Amino acid sequence: MAYKNNILIAQGGGPTNVINQSLAGIMINEKKNNSNLIGSIHGVNGIVNNKFKFLNNVSQEDLKVIRNTPGAALGSTRDKPDKTYLLEIYNVLKKKNISKFYYIGGNDSSDSLKIISNFAKAKKYNLQCIHVPKTIDNDLVLNDHTPGFGSAAKYVAQLFSGINYDVKSLPGVYIGIVMGRHAGFLTASTSLLRNKKKDGPHLIFIPENPFELNSFLQNVKKIFLKYGRCVVAVSEGIQDKKKKLFVEKIKNTNEFDAHGNIQLSGSGILGDFLANQIKSKLNISRVRADTLGYSQRCFHGSASEVDQSEAFKIGLNAVNFSLKYKNSFSVGIKERKNFRKKYKAQYILNSLDAIAGKTKVMPRNFFDKKNFDVTKEFLDYCKPLIGNKFLETMSII
Amino acid sequence: MAYKNNILIAQGGGPTNVINQSLAGIMINEKKNNSNLIGSIHGVNGIVNNKFKFLNNVSQEDLKVIRNTPGAALGSTRDKPDKTYLLEIYNVLKKKNISKFYYIGGNDSSDSLKIISNFAKAKKYNLQCIHVPKTIDNDLVLNDHTPGFGSAAKYVAQLFSGINYDVKSLPGVYIGIVMGRHAGFLTASTSLLRNKKKDGPHLIFIPENPFELNSFLQNVKKIFLKYGRCVVAVSEGIQDKKKKLFVEKIKNTNEFDAHGNIQLSGSGILGDFLANQIKSKLNISRVRADTLGYSQRCFHGSASEVDQSEAFKIGLNAVNFSLKYKNSFSVGIKERKNFRKKYKAQYILNSLDAIAGKTKVMPRNFFDKKNFDVTKEFLDYCKPLIGNKFLETMSII
Repeated sequence: MAYKNNILIAQGGGPTNVINQSLAGIMINEKKNNSNLIGSIHGVNGIVNNKFKFLNNVSQEDLKVIRNTPGAALGSTRDKPDKTYLLEIYNVLKKKNISKFYYIGGNDSSDSLKIISNFAKAKKYNLQCIHVPKTIDNDLVLNDHTPGFGSAAKYVAQLFSGINYDVKSLPGVYIGIVMGRHAGFLTASTSLLRNKKKDGPHLIFIPENPFELNSFLQNVKKIFLKYGRCVVAVSEGIQDKKKKLFVEKIKNTNEFDAHGNIQLSGSGILGDFLANQIKSKLNISRVRADTLGYSQRCFHGSASEVDQSEAFKIGLNAVNFSLKYKNSFSVGIKERKNFRKKYKAQYILNSLDAIAGKTKVMPRNFFDKKNFDVTKEFLDYCKPLIGNKFLETMSII
Repeated sequence: MAYKNNILIAQGGGPTNVINQSLAGIMINEKKNNSNLIGSIHGVNGIVNNKFKFLNNVSQEDLKVIRNTPGAALGSTRDKPDKTYLLEIYNVLKKKNISKFYYIGGNDSSDSLKIISNFAKAKKYNLQCIHVPKTIDNDLVLNDHTPGFGSAAKYVAQLFSGINYDVKSLPGVYIGIVMGRHAGFLTASTSLLRNKKKDGPHLIFIPENPFELNSFLQNVKKIFLKYGRCVVAVSEGIQDKKKKLFVEKIKNTNEFDAHGNIQLSGSGILGDFLANQIKSKLNISRVRADTLGYSQRCFHGSASEVDQSEAFKIGLNAVNFSLKYKNSFSVGIKERKNFRKKYKAQYILNSLDAIAGKTKVMPRNFFDKKNFDVTKEFLDYCKPLIGNKFLETMSII
């Protein structure tokens, strides 16, 4: 069977619950073009290490299963290629006569693609570099949101909904440390399944709202006195006014780093520190901190049906756009103006230049700075993304 | 409306995802008896502090919602009553003319009920004390399993299924610390959604199988060399041959406790310690430890449909049994002999004496001591408990 052209697909960065939906979307539509589908194993790393897999014979049945599997089905990588690495990639693509390179990844991937695309242009080699976004952080500019985010948001919303009732049963203070170094979208999403005013999370600390320990403690105290309990969502990326990461500040505090204790590199440092501050300074005995782990991006069964469908369609659209628009680009989801209107994703093209190296954070109207909470605007924006398959909840007390 | 008798219901200990199913079961069947339903708020603590709520007017619609809500709808308590406290409880029950006291709780609750029941017998006061089991640890003797366990098992199974693919995407070592101080049932359940021989968790460390650091490291190394990755499930209760908790050993090691560092009381100590050992001694760079948190017992949406149904029926049966058998007792699920037969729960009576103060651990034929894994017997035993609403999964690499 003669194929029309050689297509390379790779997945990069932290995987998500729906990253394989995008892979499937690309594969299904490229098959219709009679393309020769090649997968690079472990992202760009596979390209420079000659690890490829032909994907033409993946059956429809298997693809269905792969779509619903968390993690990157082709493997991913944390490699951050420098110019030499990128030139090597370009040379391999050229040697393999690749005409389109789809890279499903975050911000970094679009940056890499931009440089590879420029190499090709300079050499007049006909290559389309196509960025297919994914990130649970939701921090890509010019996108309403990114595939992967909705499922992670659903997971943390479900978790905090359960935690709300758990802490209501056994009152105390609960702190959950949520992923997201620069943007607070995921931490803010812990609020999505609150029903009543008294429901937790009662306080939400995001990187966009400067963190100050005393104010944190005062607010926890206030809520604890009001409700007899306090559920707090804290982003791992909280920072002070000068944009200094709070977790770095803890590590540099003499009190906690006097002897280079190994625990300081531990995964639980931020939560443990905050919990200990509450115990010692507020004299509250029942305080628990959980550092939410990888499950935020890969929990089997918490994929949002909306996120699944969009991640798939963004893959399909990447292919459709590539046929009309012969250049390199990033496929995306159009930013909404009005969050109250019925929600429907619209797929768009962005230039790699416009996406690469930029980070989107929570817009000012999404959070209540003073009360460390989210706003109605945020809820209107975010609720449609996690789907609607949720049972109602209530307790007696 | 004249009620026939006064019934008190309370919930104690760590809540579960289905503890309100049992509450609903009791309420529904006691209503049929025309009983006056009184709830004690926050377990036995509400009894001695005079915090009660009449439950007669909870609507059928609300009860439906309450059943599906994690956490204890009446509130729970960590109080471990001594004899004086228990005598006080008895006196309140007598004063309130309570004829049946349902306590939904773990091992401790059955012990408390036994003593209260004995007070009543000694005073010839007619009181039935009924223990309705719940525990995610699954460590109640004379029970095939306990309500609450199936949902927690489902949660950790889903989590490790996702983690398996996540770590396959980005190879390294992953350690998940799972709840369960004495029994390894929950940690063992991380294996329930494995599909293939290569799937993680690859190593499972439970309290029943003595833990030894060097052997742990050697086994991680062996798997890592074999598969290029290693997913490990570790019970928080792992202990050495002398039954000394490993986490206590870490705390007492000079190296890590030289200055009473505050981090040592942190929630992540066991996982962080093991991760650091792997990094430094096996020279593997990508190592991550997550300490699974409260979500194991309360994640909204991960309740097992089998667990939900059984928790409800155990509540219904508690009432039915109480009418036939006029004494105090613990309701339970009959132990299976053959795990290959089609699974169906049978509800039984146990004496409080037989249950109280005893802890069940993993039977020897449930774990492979040498390979730090579970056996087929365990899988046959446990798989039916988490239900069957799972999507198939697979990756390309």
